[in-house]
Amino acid sequence: MNSGRRPDDGERYRTILETAARLICERGYEGTSMQEIAAACRMTKAGLYHHVQNKEQLLFDIMSYGMDAFEQQVLDQVRHLEDPVARLRECMRLNIHLVTGGCSKEVIIILHEHATLTGEARAFIDSRKKAYVRFLEDAFSEAVRMGRIRTVQPTVAAFSFLGMVLWIYKWFQPDGRLTAEQVSNEMVELLFAGLVSPAAAVPGAGAPQLSIVPPVAVGEKS
Amino acid sequence: MNSGRRPDDGERYRTILETAARLICERGYEGTSMQEIAAACRMTKAGLYHHVQNKEQLLFDIMSYGMDAFEQQVLDQVRHLEDPVARLRECMRLNIHLVTGGCSKEVIIILHEHATLTGEARAFIDSRKKAYVRFLEDAFSEAVRMGRIRTVQPTVAAFSFLGMVLWIYKWFQPDGRLTAEQVSNEMVELLFAGLVSPAAAVPGAGAPQLSIVPPVAVGEKS
Repeated sequence: MNSGRRPDDGERYRTILETAARLICERGYEGTSMQEIAAACRMTKAGLYHHVQNKEQLLFDIMSYGMDAFEQQVLDQVRHLEDPVARLRECMRLNIHLVTGGCSKEVIIILHEHATLTGEARAFIDSRKKAYVRFLEDAFSEAVRMGRIRTVQPTVAAFSFLGMVLWIYKWFQPDGRLTAEQVSNEMVELLFAGLVSPAAAVPGAGAPQLSIVPPVAVGEKS
Repeated sequence: MNSGRRPDDGERYRTILETAARLICERGYEGTSMQEIAAACRMTKAGLYHHVQNKEQLLFDIMSYGMDAFEQQVLDQVRHLEDPVARLRECMRLNIHLVTGGCSKEVIIILHEHATLTGEARAFIDSRKKAYVRFLEDAFSEAVRMGRIRTVQPTVAAFSFLGMVLWIYKWFQPDGRLTAEQVSNEMVELLFAGLVSPAAAVPGAGAPQLSIVPPVAVGEKS
C-alpha cells in the first residue's frame, strides 16, 4: 500500500490525479471511464495505464492525495497547540479553509466514494479518517478535563464539528454572498463560544484558563 | 410533476420505492439496474415498468417520498411553535430521530443522488430542500431579533445545524455505544446551550425570554 507517488514522474502524476478528481467529482466514480480520464489528460488510454494500475488504484491515490493535503495543511499545523480549545478552533478554521479552497474536489471524493474502495485500500483510508475523529475526540475530552469547556460527549462533539465543516462543500459558493473567512469566523464561534466559559468566549482568547462554570445540561456518557 | 403515488396501487408502489431505495443506497444510482430492482421486488422488469415510467422517475419518487416523510415527521410538528428557539431545538431533535430511524435510506439518497436528477424534477426537489434551509434561517433570524440568542449569521447557523444533523448517517450505528436519544440530547445542547442566555440554557427552557447578554464576537452579515 503506497500513496501512488512515483519520484520519476511525480508532477505528471499529480496532474493526472487532479484531472481525474475533477471528472469523478462531476460525474461520480461509476460514471467516469478511464477513457474519459485519459482524454481529459490529453493522453491515450495506454499512456494512462503506464501511470495507473487500474481505476480503483487511481481512486485510492486521489483519496491519499486529499488526505496528505489535509494532514499537511490542517493537522500538522495544530497538533503542537497546547491549549485544546485553541487547537480545536484553529483546526476548524484551517479545515474550513481547505474545503472552501482548491482541495475541495479531493475532499468530495473522499466523502462520496468511500464505499467504492475495497479491502486493504479501503481499510487504509478509513484508518486515516478515524485518526482525525480520534484527534478531535481527544481534544474535546482534554478540554473538558481541564475545565476549559463544559462537559460534552466527545464523540458527538467530534462528529458535530466534522458535520459542520464537511457539509460546507454542499452549500458554499466561492463567489457567493459569504466569504470563506466569514463562514470560518461564524462557525468557530457557533461551536466554541458557547462551550467555553463566558470570559473565554471573546475573540482571540485562546490561552489556557480554568472555567468555574459547572457542566450544564449534558452528561459525559463515553 | 407529481409525487408518483397512485391511489390504485399506493401500497405496492411504496414497497417498490422502499426496496429500490435500499438497493440504490447500497450500490449507488448508477450501480443499480432496473432489472435488479425488479428482481428484489420479486417482479419482472416489465411488471416494474407498469408502475414506474423510468429509472429517473423512480429516483425522483424516492426523493419525494423522503421529503414527504421529513415534512410530516419534522417540519409539520414544529411550525406552530411560537418561540423560535423551542422551534429550532425540537426541529433538530425530530430530524435526528428521522435520520437515526427507518427513513435514513431515503435521506441518504436525497443527499447523494442530488446531482443525478435533471430539469424540472431536480428543480422541484431543490426547492423543497431550500424551503427547509429558509425555515431554519428565518427561525435563527427571529431568535436573534427577539434577543433569544446572541447574534449569529443565519445562513451559517442554518447550514451548521444541517451539517450536524445530516452527517449523522455517516457515523451513527443503531446498535452502537450511543443511543439516538443521547446523540439528540447532546447535539441540541451543543448548538443551542451556548447561543441562548445562561438562564435559558437549562434543559426544558423553551419559553420566550429576553436575553440581556449582548451579541458577542460575530456580526450579522446577511
